[in-house]
Amino acid sequence: MEDTEWAALTAHLGEIEILEGIMGVLGWDEQTFMPRKAAGLRGTQQALLSRLSHERLVDPRVGAWLAALEAHPDRDVVQNACARNLGRTYRRERGVSSDLVDRLARARSDGFQAWIEAKKTSNFEVFAPVLQRLVDLSRERAAAIDPSRHPYEVLLEQFDPGTSVESLRSMFARLRAGLVPLIEAIAAAPAQTPLAGPWELERQWALNREVAAGLGYDFEGGRLDASEHPFSTGHGEGDARITAHLTPDDLLSGLGGTIHETGHALYEQGIPRSLLGTTVGEAASFGLHESQSRFWENYIGRSRPFAGWLADRIHTHFPSSRLDADTLFRALNRVERGLIRVKADEVTYNLHVIVRFELELALFEGRLAVKDLPAAWNEKYRTYLGVTPPDDARGVLQDVHWSGAAFGYFPSYTLGNLYAASFGATLEAALPTLWDDVGRGHFGDILAWLRTHVHGVGHRFEAPEIVKNAVGGRDHVEDLLAYLWRRQGAVYGVVRPSGV
Amino acid sequence: MEDTEWAALTAHLGEIEILEGIMGVLGWDEQTFMPRKAAGLRGTQQALLSRLSHERLVDPRVGAWLAALEAHPDRDVVQNACARNLGRTYRRERGVSSDLVDRLARARSDGFQAWIEAKKTSNFEVFAPVLQRLVDLSRERAAAIDPSRHPYEVLLEQFDPGTSVESLRSMFARLRAGLVPLIEAIAAAPAQTPLAGPWELERQWALNREVAAGLGYDFEGGRLDASEHPFSTGHGEGDARITAHLTPDDLLSGLGGTIHETGHALYEQGIPRSLLGTTVGEAASFGLHESQSRFWENYIGRSRPFAGWLADRIHTHFPSSRLDADTLFRALNRVERGLIRVKADEVTYNLHVIVRFELELALFEGRLAVKDLPAAWNEKYRTYLGVTPPDDARGVLQDVHWSGAAFGYFPSYTLGNLYAASFGATLEAALPTLWDDVGRGHFGDILAWLRTHVHGVGHRFEAPEIVKNAVGGRDHVEDLLAYLWRRQGAVYGVVRPSGV
Repeated sequence: MEDTEWAALTAHLGEIEILEGIMGVLGWDEQTFMPRKAAGLRGTQQALLSRLSHERLVDPRVGAWLAALEAHPDRDVVQNACARNLGRTYRRERGVSSDLVDRLARARSDGFQAWIEAKKTSNFEVFAPVLQRLVDLSRERAAAIDPSRHPYEVLLEQFDPGTSVESLRSMFARLRAGLVPLIEAIAAAPAQTPLAGPWELERQWALNREVAAGLGYDFEGGRLDASEHPFSTGHGEGDARITAHLTPDDLLSGLGGTIHETGHALYEQGIPRSLLGTTVGEAASFGLHESQSRFWENYIGRSRPFAGWLADRIHTHFPSSRLDADTLFRALNRVERGLIRVKADEVTYNLHVIVRFELELALFEGRLAVKDLPAAWNEKYRTYLGVTPPDDARGVLQDVHWSGAAFGYFPSYTLGNLYAASFGATLEAALPTLWDDVGRGHFGDILAWLRTHVHGVGHRFEAPEIVKNAVGGRDHVEDLLAYLWRRQGAVYGVVRPSGV
Repeated sequence: MEDTEWAALTAHLGEIEILEGIMGVLGWDEQTFMPRKAAGLRGTQQALLSRLSHERLVDPRVGAWLAALEAHPDRDVVQNACARNLGRTYRRERGVSSDLVDRLARARSDGFQAWIEAKKTSNFEVFAPVLQRLVDLSRERAAAIDPSRHPYEVLLEQFDPGTSVESLRSMFARLRAGLVPLIEAIAAAPAQTPLAGPWELERQWALNREVAAGLGYDFEGGRLDASEHPFSTGHGEGDARITAHLTPDDLLSGLGGTIHETGHALYEQGIPRSLLGTTVGEAASFGLHESQSRFWENYIGRSRPFAGWLADRIHTHFPSSRLDADTLFRALNRVERGLIRVKADEVTYNLHVIVRFELELALFEGRLAVKDLPAAWNEKYRTYLGVTPPDDARGVLQDVHWSGAAFGYFPSYTLGNLYAASFGATLEAALPTLWDDVGRGHFGDILAWLRTHVHGVGHRFEAPEIVKNAVGGRDHVEDLLAYLWRRQGAVYGVVRPSGV
């Protein structure tokens, strides 16, 4: 591609990125500081920006630029990546008729209302018809984008491009087979007790800020505020904010949330923004993003050395707490078989995700009817987790995702855990002082490794390729299982049987 | 105009208003919470939104709609107002070539840098050449917009449409003649002492919030945060935020700032937003906006009854302060002849503004050369205020405005005081319980009067017409002078001589 053409293309795509950054700031404001009465106006503002961004993406010039890029493959890694990333988004947006976009938007709106009502009354019947519509429309959308491929893979691609249905099916089946005996072994061991509260909120905020900064979060390019649900943003250069939801009763879930969002934000803060408009200056996938949050939250943040460092930090902020590192380590790693995904620990969490993945796949492969979802859900919870939902509100209706047709989203959570385990295993080998560093609160070398192998790569390659380049041919499922057995062995005394 | 055409026009103009609202939110964020490192990105975001807004305004369809509106005058008050407001903005933006826009932008950027340097070294020579360029380019711009009119009036119109140079010249001359003897009389009286500090900041924030809410500010459609310089925003429906700069030493200037910004925000919260895209759902002028802030800050906020109410509020938040209402009233109304406009009290403030207006006018009428500005400045300060700047940093270089070519902006401050005095005089007659209400902290009837006569009118009429409809044929200069003599009589014991 000619330099002038490339400059025109990146200027054009840069505008889309800037508009998306603005939408990010407005979204952050909406969840943190926006006055209640501005809600209607904010919707109008976001709708306008969204339209402006969409118009730019489907501009016919983009098609021409894309053809020019694709006519000369292998010219330069950034241009090749741009052809791949842009081509996918462009075809997704162009392939779907505005009529279908409208029908989906309406179904999502109906879906959300129906889901609220169904969950309130724990009555799946209320949600079933619109869920059927959402599945049908999503299948229609997948076919419009690429009729030659597995519809679920086309949907999955919105979140985790480069990941195939087959690889997920195989990894998740092996992971499930390995997790079930681990969870049974833990259930047979004596239970661990949670930390008692209350914990004064101002002190918690100071502790959370200190921990985030300690991990390497740059507060000059971000900030930490309160919101109902914790989230992180990456609006573009110098602006990656995080939020936390702290409560007096639960020190560790608030802090875990902050470490999680810090992990996301460290990724955003490490992406080179010099490549504005090339599609390369962005995170490579939801799963890879989640690997960064989970790596810090779980692999590092629930380790025994981290518990040692954290116990000191807690003691500084809560001098009368008398919390020792061992008690903290055990509280950080409590496992409990529960019904609710968002409250799950890091071991059982993956089974919650796998249930949803298997059900979504069965729906899209026509092996399961919407009306049979509650029974299938309950059966899987019984078999995998040993718990049975007493009603649909605490079962199949618990998550908002399906009401918005976000099929293919759930797998990224567990993909993140899988990648994180392989990053951890690789780092243990590459950095012999890893756990000493963690115990002393020195996270710089760990962050530097992630900056080199993950953050700094941006979206030059697809996530599975980035991970492979970073960790070699490691088996993510085995890495995750080995890590969980080892960690839980230290807490519950469980021992991995051979052959599991 | 046909209904469908009108609908298309208002939808189009609505987009401009929404884009401006978004720029407002981003600007608010920039001055309150934005991470330092996001500054570059924020500039890029604002520049893009600014361009999108400008493109919409100069769209040729706007010209066609405008012609259609103007072809049928007197059809309906909103459409007539739209023709007037839009016509002015459209011709201003279309009349100025993009070459001139670029040259002005460059001169502003150079001007700001030169001003910073000149002020630091107190060396006007550094600023003079670029100030000359800014004056020349502004005159060129005024001629491009309308060569038949006084260039200063064309510039003034950006801030106070509907106000003529002649009306300002005459009002400001009479006001100056009346203020000089008042200030001399005050200077001859015993000085008043300021309040001693310190005042704990958290308690100040609570007090400021209580006062703003007490005046009628709706915190569900706004919020109060900290910023280096206090400001208020009106982003559109349900979103009118204010900020304050509170310091431990100075309770009253922080609180005065909050009341000032509350006055601005009450205006924004009272504008009917149902008229999106008509140009009518906006404030009518900078001067009218300033009248709202000054009315609450000075006319109400420095009155003896208000001091009574405020002393109780202060006592609640600072139980040990023992501040009595009379002491507070005197401290609220201290007058001091100083060099710096932004630190001036409400009496001398107007002379600071009049100096600038007279100098701007002389520059644009060719009666004064840029090189002679410092001498002219110092002479006016000596004659009007009885003080002589020891250097240009504390003289002609003190304000940022001219470095950005904001000629015609200063008068709105004093226009605001003039209008506010006539609103006050009218309210005293219309609402016999006015001062009792203020003393009891009941501001609802005052706000209701402003909502009816000012806020609710939006931009249906030009500001001078709105004021005239509200107060009748009152003489604003006389109202302001009478009010100031009366107020200062109660504080300093000064008595207005007959004939002044």
